[in-house]
Amino acid sequence: MNRRVFTNESVGPGQVMNVTGEKGHHFARVLRLRDGEALVVAAANGPHAAVVTSVDAKRGEVTLQIGDPVERRDPAVPVYLVQSFAKGDKVDDVVEKCTELGVAGFCVLPTQRSIGQLTGERLTARLARWRRIAAEAAGQAQRDAVPSVDWYPGLSALDGYLEDVQPGLLLLLDEQETTCGIRTALKEALTQSAPLRSVVLMVGPEGGWDERERAWLRQAGAQSITIGQRILRTETAGLVAASAVLYEIGELGG
Amino acid sequence: MNRRVFTNESVGPGQVMNVTGEKGHHFARVLRLRDGEALVVAAANGPHAAVVTSVDAKRGEVTLQIGDPVERRDPAVPVYLVQSFAKGDKVDDVVEKCTELGVAGFCVLPTQRSIGQLTGERLTARLARWRRIAAEAAGQAQRDAVPSVDWYPGLSALDGYLEDVQPGLLLLLDEQETTCGIRTALKEALTQSAPLRSVVLMVGPEGGWDERERAWLRQAGAQSITIGQRILRTETAGLVAASAVLYEIGELGG
Repeated sequence: MNRRVFTNESVGPGQVMNVTGEKGHHFARVLRLRDGEALVVAAANGPHAAVVTSVDAKRGEVTLQIGDPVERRDPAVPVYLVQSFAKGDKVDDVVEKCTELGVAGFCVLPTQRSIGQLTGERLTARLARWRRIAAEAAGQAQRDAVPSVDWYPGLSALDGYLEDVQPGLLLLLDEQETTCGIRTALKEALTQSAPLRSVVLMVGPEGGWDERERAWLRQAGAQSITIGQRILRTETAGLVAASAVLYEIGELGG
Repeated sequence: MNRRVFTNESVGPGQVMNVTGEKGHHFARVLRLRDGEALVVAAANGPHAAVVTSVDAKRGEVTLQIGDPVERRDPAVPVYLVQSFAKGDKVDDVVEKCTELGVAGFCVLPTQRSIGQLTGERLTARLARWRRIAAEAAGQAQRDAVPSVDWYPGLSALDGYLEDVQPGLLLLLDEQETTCGIRTALKEALTQSAPLRSVVLMVGPEGGWDERERAWLRQAGAQSITIGQRILRTETAGLVAASAVLYEIGELGG
């Protein structure tokens, strides 16, 4: 299977693309693209076939000849994950595995009952690490784009984010909810006349959401759901719920 | 939420249960049960409420008073995972997260393209480790039973296993399959007149199944399926596929 490289630019068949600077360095010296290698360039306007026509590893410059578009692989309905921060490498695993699965973007944030904190240089370093993990997993999984990974200092800071994403369905995974399952919520949303724009899944900390957080989230339009009777760890719940969403919308194989 | 302890015995309301030996040691000194603590005893005949009526930590003896049965939490249709061995702690993660989700049992086995091998003492130690992980995750997730974890020396050794489990549906996750999705296979199985007995999911190694393995598995009744267009790592595929199965059969919340 051809390797994937990601670019935020749009490309077109026949175009010659010179990649220099940081990206050129990355392509030539980190990914070690080889002259003549067939690739997929996952561009802003979709994935395209491409061939490497020159590599100058010393200067960090690569030239690609862009070919035809190839089939898109990312889900047609974007699924986002809002993940309560958890200590250790738990969020690393969440970002890696949910990127493979097809999650479109991640918001990580501290919640009332989060264990561990991230500020200053440690936050900067960790965010860079999550983004690197997302880029690697996106390449490995043959995604069309690298998911965004962002840090929000708290729940109220999500206001702007929710305005940007305009979620078609905002689901709050809540261990106190015993009636409404994720299946009911999804099937109901899919019977609406308007197509489902996006799904945002919110996963709380090990100790669960705080009452004020629940109130704030419901005010913001979130619907509390259960994903079954087993109690999942915070680092497992997002992947399971996202699998359920992608399955229901036909993105885990027809 | 009350803690869970597991026993292979059957219990009944009013019964006084003396736990001694290795199990008593585990209850008194590892789990540190406290006198008067309310528990759930996940027994062979289902989970029951219980109260600790005495603890002798020195002798490793605990007495429990069994109460009424409580609601079962394990899926009504068992889902088993056959996982190709992978090096590092990948199988640890698979066992942990799939146990939380509700998988009924694991077969780990080397396949043609597995990386890494396990034999002798290393195998014994690793198997003990997987079983410990399964027991801990089962308690944490409030399961009704600890999933079995077994090692098979190769694919052909699965013959007896498949005879025991008598899978209602044997699904081979196969990156070469592009047509039949897990959804089609599940929905078809669920429209049969006989209720679905069990589902066995088979996850190959990073390099995929070998042609002879595919032939052997098809002969054994396996159906090749895709779980979508993103390429999942071997340690991610089982959890995603098991989530899809449990979602479809109504076990991830109604």
